[in-house]
Order: sequence, then C-alpha cells, then structure tokens
Amino acid sequence: MPKVTFLPANVILEIPEDENLLKAAMKAGIHINASCGGAGVCNKCRIFIEQGEVKGEELPEGGWKACATSPVTDVVVRIPVESQMDRKALSRPLARKAAAWIKVHGEKVTVKSQPAVTKKLISVPEPSSTDNLSDLCRIRREVGKSFHLDVDSQVLHRLPYAMREGNWQVTASFMETPSSNRKRLIRVEPGDTTKKQYGVSIDIGTTTVSARLVSLTDQKVLAESSDYNPQVSYGEDVISRMEFTRKGDGLAILQEKIVECLNKLISELLEKTGKNKEDIDLVTVAANTVMTHFLLGLETRFLRAAPYTPVANRFPPVRAREIGIDLPSHVRLFLAPCVASYVGGDIVAGVVGVGINHHPELTLFIDIGTNGEIVLGNQDWMACAACSAGPAFEGGGIKYGMRATVGAVEVVHIHPETFEPMVLTIGGKKAKGICGSGIISLLAGLFMTGALDRQGKFQQDLPTSRIRQGNDGWEYVVVEKDATAIGEDIVFTEADVENLIRAKGAMFAGYLTLLESVGMSIEDVERVILAGNFGSYLDLEQAITIGLLPDIPRERFFFAGNSSLLGAHIAAISWPKLKEMEEVSQMMTHFDLADNPRFMDHYVSCLFLPHTDLSLFPSVNEALKE
Amino acid sequence: MPKVTFLPANVILEIPEDENLLKAAMKAGIHINASCGGAGVCNKCRIFIEQGEVKGEELPEGGWKACATSPVTDVVVRIPVESQMDRKALSRPLARKAAAWIKVHGEKVTVKSQPAVTKKLISVPEPSSTDNLSDLCRIRREVGKSFHLDVDSQVLHRLPYAMREGNWQVTASFMETPSSNRKRLIRVEPGDTTKKQYGVSIDIGTTTVSARLVSLTDQKVLAESSDYNPQVSYGEDVISRMEFTRKGDGLAILQEKIVECLNKLISELLEKTGKNKEDIDLVTVAANTVMTHFLLGLETRFLRAAPYTPVANRFPPVRAREIGIDLPSHVRLFLAPCVASYVGGDIVAGVVGVGINHHPELTLFIDIGTNGEIVLGNQDWMACAACSAGPAFEGGGIKYGMRATVGAVEVVHIHPETFEPMVLTIGGKKAKGICGSGIISLLAGLFMTGALDRQGKFQQDLPTSRIRQGNDGWEYVVVEKDATAIGEDIVFTEADVENLIRAKGAMFAGYLTLLESVGMSIEDVERVILAGNFGSYLDLEQAITIGLLPDIPRERFFFAGNSSLLGAHIAAISWPKLKEMEEVSQMMTHFDLADNPRFMDHYVSCLFLPHTDLSLFPSVNEALKE
Repeated sequence: MPKVTFLPANVILEIPEDENLLKAAMKAGIHINASCGGAGVCNKCRIFIEQGEVKGEELPEGGWKACATSPVTDVVVRIPVESQMDRKALSRPLARKAAAWIKVHGEKVTVKSQPAVTKKLISVPEPSSTDNLSDLCRIRREVGKSFHLDVDSQVLHRLPYAMREGNWQVTASFMETPSSNRKRLIRVEPGDTTKKQYGVSIDIGTTTVSARLVSLTDQKVLAESSDYNPQVSYGEDVISRMEFTRKGDGLAILQEKIVECLNKLISELLEKTGKNKEDIDLVTVAANTVMTHFLLGLETRFLRAAPYTPVANRFPPVRAREIGIDLPSHVRLFLAPCVASYVGGDIVAGVVGVGINHHPELTLFIDIGTNGEIVLGNQDWMACAACSAGPAFEGGGIKYGMRATVGAVEVVHIHPETFEPMVLTIGGKKAKGICGSGIISLLAGLFMTGALDRQGKFQQDLPTSRIRQGNDGWEYVVVEKDATAIGEDIVFTEADVENLIRAKGAMFAGYLTLLESVGMSIEDVERVILAGNFGSYLDLEQAITIGLLPDIPRERFFFAGNSSLLGAHIAAISWPKLKEMEEVSQMMTHFDLADNPRFMDHYVSCLFLPHTDLSLFPSVNEALKE
Repeated sequence: MPKVTFLPANVILEIPEDENLLKAAMKAGIHINASCGGAGVCNKCRIFIEQGEVKGEELPEGGWKACATSPVTDVVVRIPVESQMDRKALSRPLARKAAAWIKVHGEKVTVKSQPAVTKKLISVPEPSSTDNLSDLCRIRREVGKSFHLDVDSQVLHRLPYAMREGNWQVTASFMETPSSNRKRLIRVEPGDTTKKQYGVSIDIGTTTVSARLVSLTDQKVLAESSDYNPQVSYGEDVISRMEFTRKGDGLAILQEKIVECLNKLISELLEKTGKNKEDIDLVTVAANTVMTHFLLGLETRFLRAAPYTPVANRFPPVRAREIGIDLPSHVRLFLAPCVASYVGGDIVAGVVGVGINHHPELTLFIDIGTNGEIVLGNQDWMACAACSAGPAFEGGGIKYGMRATVGAVEVVHIHPETFEPMVLTIGGKKAKGICGSGIISLLAGLFMTGALDRQGKFQQDLPTSRIRQGNDGWEYVVVEKDATAIGEDIVFTEADVENLIRAKGAMFAGYLTLLESVGMSIEDVERVILAGNFGSYLDLEQAITIGLLPDIPRERFFFAGNSSLLGAHIAAISWPKLKEMEEVSQMMTHFDLADNPRFMDHYVSCLFLPHTDLSLFPSVNEALKE
C-alpha cells in the first residue's frame, strides 16, 4: 500500500492502491475543499504532488484533482493555501473510523447453528406385503418416539413421490414448536439435501427494508438487499400510515405493498446467489409494532390512539405464503415479538442481537431509526421507551435529506475559517442529497465552526457566500447546483437544523427520563450500544457534539449497525435465540414518555446545541472554549 | 290407533291412522299380491272389508285397493283367494322390524358432550393507560396459565373488533391439540355465543355421501342430507377411480367433485335449519382410505397396487377451507384414521361409534357397503379385513339396482304358490328400481319359494309368467312396465343373482377366514353388529337365508345403520372419541384376504345358497325341508 504524506500538516498514512487522495485526506483528518463529493466536477479539490508518482487528472491551472487522483508510488501531497486550516482543527481527528472497527462487546458475535427448522436424513425400508405401513408411518417409525410429530398437510401431497424418487432415502425438515416434546414435519425431499439450508432474515423499517440470505449450516451471509419501504408513498411515518388504513382498503394496500417489497428483495437475494425458492427453509422478520401489524394485515386503529393497544405483541409463526410471500408452502415466517405500541420487534431483535440479555453491565441501547427507541438495562432487568424523535436522522423532514445510497452526501468537513466544505458522497457520484451521517456531520461542523449558534441559528455576517438567505430562510450551501446530480443547489436550512435539534432533543430527553425513572444518571451507563442503519460513517464525536449521544468516555460506545437485521439474522440461525426474544419481550418494562411530565421538562432543556446544561457535555464545552 | 284383523289368517294388529292396508299387511306378515309398490296403479292388491269403516279407493269389480285404503274404525279385512297362501308361510313372520327396534347393545348410545372445539365466555377489563396490554394478552391473561395457547392467525384479524363490539366480553373457541397442556385459539366472537355450537359430521361412502348437522351442546341432530358420491361418474368402485387419477388431472377432478358434493350437502343442512356457516365449529369426516386420499388430494397410485401403501393412515386436522370447503377459516376438518388400504376411517369410526372397544364380548362387525369390511374382536384386540364384495348390496352391478331413495323397491314378498309378488316401494311411489333391502328380500324369497335353486338358477317350469327368458337370460318380473315409473319391466336376472352370490360369498368367506385366523369359529361369535346404509327394512332372516349373515341365534344380532356416520357424529360431539379412533386404528391387526389361500377355499364353498355346507345354516336347512 502506498504511503501518503500530507503537507503542511505532515500527516502520514497508508492507503490502498486506487484509493483517491480526497478520501485519503478525509481519513487522515486533512481538509481539502471539495463540494462535488468526489464526482470530479467542481475542480475545487486541488492538490500538489511534491514527490512520487500519481495517476489521475491534472488541472489546467496546475496541480491535480484530489478526487480523481491516486498514488502509484509513495507520495508527498501539499494542500494548497485555499484549503489549509490551522493545526488546531486537526487535533481532533474524525472518529468516524470507530464505527467500522468497534464490534459489539469488542468481540465477534458467535451463535451456535440451531435453526428453528432442522433437516434429517432418513432411510426407510421399502414396503413389502409383510410391511406395508403407510409412507408417513415409515417416517414416524424412523424418527422415533422421542417426540410427538405434527405433520403439515402439504407434506402428504409430496411424500409418496419423494420417498420413491429418493429410493427410500429422504430428507425431512422438522420445525421446532414451543413444546420441547413436539416437532412438526413441514417438508420431505428425495435424497440427501441436509447440506442445503438457507434462511432469509428481514428488517422492516418504517423507511428502509433490508434482507439477507444466510446459510443456516455455516452461518455465512450469502447476499444482502435493501430498498425503501414502499409504504412511504402512503405516509412518511407510522402515524400517517395508520391514518391511511382508516380509508377504504388502506390496510390491504399497505400489506400488499410491503409484501411486494419482500418478494422483490427475496427475488434479488436468490438471483444474486443462484439459489431457488425451494432452498429456503425459513424467514425471520424483525419490525416495529406498526410494521408488524401491517405485514400481518392487522388493524392498527386501536394502536393509533390512547391507550395504544396492539392486537398482539407475540405472533405465532405464519406460513409465508399465507400473507402473500411467494415462497413454498412449508416456509414459515417467524416474527420478533413486540413490547408495546412503539417499542417493537425491531428493538427486541436488536437487544437479543447484541446480547444485552447476557451481560451484567448497565447498557443504554439506542436505536435511531424513524422513531428512536431506547432500552436501558442488563441481563436482569430492562426498561424501554419510544422517543418520538421522528425520521430526521434518516433524512426525513430534511429539505435535501435522503437514504444512504449512491449519491448521498455521507460526510462533510467544514473549514473553520473559510466555511468551505469537504464533501464525500457515497460511491463518489454527483450529490443527490444528504444522508443521516452527512446531516450529523453538517450540523456538528457548522456548530463547531461557529456558523450555527447554540439555538441553531446561522451567523449571518460570516465571510462566506455559502451562508445565505434562501427561499426557506437562512441556509448553508453544501453543494452548488453545477456539481449536483439534481441541477439545483443542495442546501442545509435553518428549518432542517430546527428539526434535527428537536429530534436529538427527544432522544436525549428519553435517556435522561428513563435513567431517572430507575434512579440512575448518565454517568452510571457502562455501555452505550448504538443501533441504526448509519453505515460506517457515523462520527461519534460529531454525534456527541450535537447532543445526540451522551458525553461520556468514548470507549463505552459500541456500534451495532442495523441491530434489528442482526437480531433477525441470529434468530434465523438459532431457535434458542428466537425463544430468548420472547423472554426479553416479556421482561421489558415499557415507559410511556408521552404521559411523563419529566420527559417534557428534559425535552425543553435539550432544545439547544448540545444542551442547555453544558455541564452534561464537558468535552464539547471544552472544545467550544478553544 | 285402529285395530286391523286380517282374515283368513286371523292376524290382528294396530296401525296408525292414515297408514294404508298394504303396509299394514306387510307388517303383519300377510301376503297381498301387489306389484306397483303402493302407487295405486296395478290394481292387484284387492281386499274385502268385512267389518268397520275405511276410506280410500273402491275397485269397480268389488273390494278395495289395499295400497290406497286406510281404516277409519277398527276393521276386519279378508284377503281374496288370489292372494291367499297356506298358513305355513305365515309361521315365519318377517323379522324386518328388528332393524328398526334393536339398538346397538340393546341400549341407546350416550356420549358426553366434549367436542374438540370448546367455547368459553371471557370478560376482560377495558384497556387504560396503566393497563394497555395487547388485545391478545388480555385474552391470555383471562384464560390462565394452565395450558399453552397457540393462536390461529385469522383470530388476530378479527380480535380487536370482536373485543370492542362485545364491549370487552367475547366468546373464544379453543381447539384441543394432541398435547393435553396446549390449546389453540381459533376464533373470537363478540358477546356470548356459547349456546351456539354446531358440528357437521360426514360419511363419505364410495357410492353415497351423508351429512348431519348436530348441536354440540345438546347433541341433537338438526338435519340430515345425503346424495350420491359424484365421483361415481368417474368410476363405480375405488379401483376404477384410482385408475382415473392416473390420467392428467384426474386426482384434482375427483377431489373437486367430492368437495363440491360436501359443499352442497352442508348448504342443504344450513338451509334446512336456518343456520349460518359462521355457526359451525368443526367438521368430522369418516371415509374409507381411498375416499380419504381423494378428499385430501393425495396420490393413490401406490395404494392401487401391491403392496398397497397409503400415503398416511392418520391425518392431522386440516382447515376445511384449505381443501376447498366453503366454511370460515377457523373450521377444522377432523378425519377418522385408517388402518390399511381397504380398511378405512369409515370402519374405525363405525367400531368406535358402536363401542366395540368398550365391550368384552367377541363381536363380529360387518359393514356391507360398496366393498364389505369386517372387524372381529373386542375391547382387548381387533382383527380386520376387507372382503372385495363389490357394490351389489348397494344396487351396483344389479340390472335394476338403485339407491334407497323414493321409488326404490325396498321389500318384496313372494307368494309361495303363485309366485306373485307383494312389493313395497319407498314413499309408495311407482318403482324406479330395486334397492339393497329389496334385492335381499327378492333373492331370499325366490330361493325359499323354490323359484331359484341352490346354484342360483331359475326353475324354468313353474306355473307363472313372471319367470321368463329375457334379453339377459332367465329373469323374474318384479314390477310390470305399466306399474313402473320408467316405462319398462323391472326384472331381477340370473346374472344379478350370480353377482349377489359372489358378493355374499366374499363376505361369508371373510368371516370364516378371519375367525379361523384367530382360532375361532362362527359359534364363538357373541355379537354380530351389522353396519350399512340399508335403512330400516333389512330383513335379518332373509339375509341369513341367502348366506350373507351367519345362522346363529337371532338375539346376537344388532343393527347399527350407517355406523360410519354414527362414528363421525360421535367424534363431532366428543374429542375423547376422536382420540379413541386413533387408538383403535392402531390396535387393529389387518389381514390381507387377497393373499390368503384359505379365503379362496372358503369363497368357493360360499358360492351356493346359502352355502355348500348346509350344516353351517341349520335353521335355513330346517326351513328348506319344510
């Protein structure tokens, strides 16, 4: 790997061949003006090569485009004066790498393969006139009497062929049941198919749906796919979607849409891996309470209004086909159990996924999805709450907010003197919008450079044209029109800032209220596990800077990524983990924050950057003073 | 009730007002020539009223038509000379009444109401902000922890409405499962519906399908319906139907046909009683192995040929809707378990229906349906076999054979000197054909009057024009053309006789072989239970006369009627009886007669009337001597 030295800061790092020097600079914590995100169109990311050989694009006025240039040998790169900033800004290197490095509990999660559906190779003697038991009896006889056998009716249709095609050797699939002495025969295939065992695990978020194909024998993830939740067209958030179900066949439409989406994702997984529908043994789904109701076509009218009663919190396994999923009839869909109207199966799956129920440390589990749910507890007790934070951190309600896909601004660094941004987009393509991590880094950067004050208002007299009065009030121009893929300036508005402050305020007020409810405070928290689909670019320091995460020692933070999908994945591999979810859902005490006057008090105090009470954010306070 | 005295025999009996004097004479064992079955067209059933008052039809040549005349006061009736026979014939009065009188075990069968689906009225507290458990949890909480609760997914769709419509009082339907500590919630209805509990019990015969609507709370039969099995169009017997399934979508067609038939019968039951589909809790079905396979759409190819392997003998309850039955999704269909390819759920249901598994007496259970199956045993052991008797006793393979419906000749008495018949049809309508009981009484009558010899050949020199050479060889004219509803003579041919002798021979050879297999003989049999859909007119003496039933003391005989339907009925009322069926199906030892050389020996000996060895039929031998 070539070594790159950035001057004048004299920061040295090794980067993979073919990595461009803009990305290298971002990794090194070196600011280079760049607003097109790496698409090579703004021509602002000029650098000079002082030593070594590079390949890429030279600029007519001299120097190279950092975003389109990569080292061939070790190189020494000089940052031009227009991009330079004083060393102090560099003293707090971006912590964003942490997200990619830190595993939950600091170790790899390992779960024993013991799926809810197991296969067994069975050889039976061929029938004769002295032994003409029925085909099914022959299976029962070989399975033994150690458990009672229930039988799916579709098995009987296939059974006589399978036994004869397999020359009296078949692979039987047994599904576990809640009783340890009962199993259910759900499939019989000719011959030995015990090596073929695949599961699909799915996280249905309000905004995004993600699915994985996993080998149940060796736990390998064979493929992943994700897409927007198509219900978004019928309402951004769960409230507006529940409202939609009250009209005509609204509920049927929402169910149909999510099922279509799951069918599409499953098809993609199969296409990517060359597997067939028939290879799938089971599907696990983790979703919030409302999404779970929609998937099953259950009424949400009473979930919508006080006292917020779900139809059910725990769901029997359903045949995937019964709800419209295009998989063979033996395939069951196992749903993560919910706790309450706004603390759903996604959270329960996440908690089991990261193993809070197996650790003694006081853990604060934070899922910043479309709503924002938190769990506080350890292996002995758990309290949970929903914060009504809204989808701001997923890009919802943000003028140019978008999902973390190609073309999303995922990280922004702002020059503390010139306020010029250094923008990276996902895939290095022209920017289409700003995703969650980009939004946080924008808010933190604008605040730390003084462009935003503690109330979230722009300083209007700074020496930059990027801060300006726009159609929606004051705004910061992140990417100029010509450098975007959408033909208009991508801006970050004061209204966006306001939404974000409310969202982070709701989260933080949630932590404080839940801790208070159990007589504890922020300092007592031994671990913070951050869940959410931010990808690897969420910057811990920035999230603390804006008051979204508590200002406690950084080594207490762990990133779980999409923990709901992680939980669904683990549940696909492990039937005991599915049962643990039931236990966890029953041990969680739910606190209704909407009814809690302390929550309102905390919330109001949180509507500042990072918080009204700066003593809660000592390190941010320190940095601000500098 | 008016008293009727028949002269010259001086037989006196009381009959209901409005009963005609032809029926009265048949009951009294008095012969009156009558060939139109009571339709009033043959004008042969002339009688003279010597005393008392009658209403009806006088004949122009004097006297009254017995079939159209009933007593107003006590009457004295003289039989005209052309109908009279000597008193000897009267010394053996028709035993046919027995069928209507004798109950199984001589007592009424009583079973405790304890159906597989039970209803429970549940009141739950209305949810509040301090108690906002899910709707389902509220049910669970009230049901208690004494059993694990499985839940049908359709329950969840209805649950929130039911609870609120019922103002927090609902009726929950629980289905029993094979585990005593588990139940399944299959339905929730608003308010109190515990008084409404109905089941449909069905017997699917190869030829006839019968269904009953029964109240599960008080065991009352609310309605009955029956019809031909529409699969008959695709094959008279199970072999030809199994053959049919080998072509294209033959199996799907047969399944569709039987399901259509069940839907029609269920609709009729509901129409007759003004009940709704929604009122039905469960369906029980008893059927032979092949009919069971067809109903479930299971392959019969391997059942068709040696070693005759069914797909399964015991079947999980299936959702009625899953196989196409038009009932709500909570309704389960419970199938009587089978024993082997040709001893099916109809026999198991019959055995449990009549309670053989609860009595110590050695019992021979005989089901003369389309095939002819027998069970020998008691509460401790059971052996069973199928006799391949064919459908002759259901009218199959008999030139003018028909089902026991309106217009069927159901009983025939033959004058021992003139060979003139006394015919009664079902409903007193013009004859369309001859049903099972009519066929037996014809065969027995023709044999006892000497019109048929022991080989089943007609005496060709008798002084009657009724015995004649027809298109199909020698025949007896039962009803002349003008008196029928079909515009042709209804005859009984030598070919019919041959078929019947083969059929009764196969049955009797079956009894002997099975008894021999367990080291017993006819005399050891303490009870004979006769099952089959003969209605109330099967004549025990006549059945013994032709060698269909063993010639043992008459008090050992019991008539069960359609015992398969009886079993299905009892299974609808009682979950323990459903479980007994499983036990019985497993305790039965099946003997394959086709492979048994002793069966062939016995069969050949049985191809005489009543049998080659007359010592096996002492009372018939005695009567023949007279």
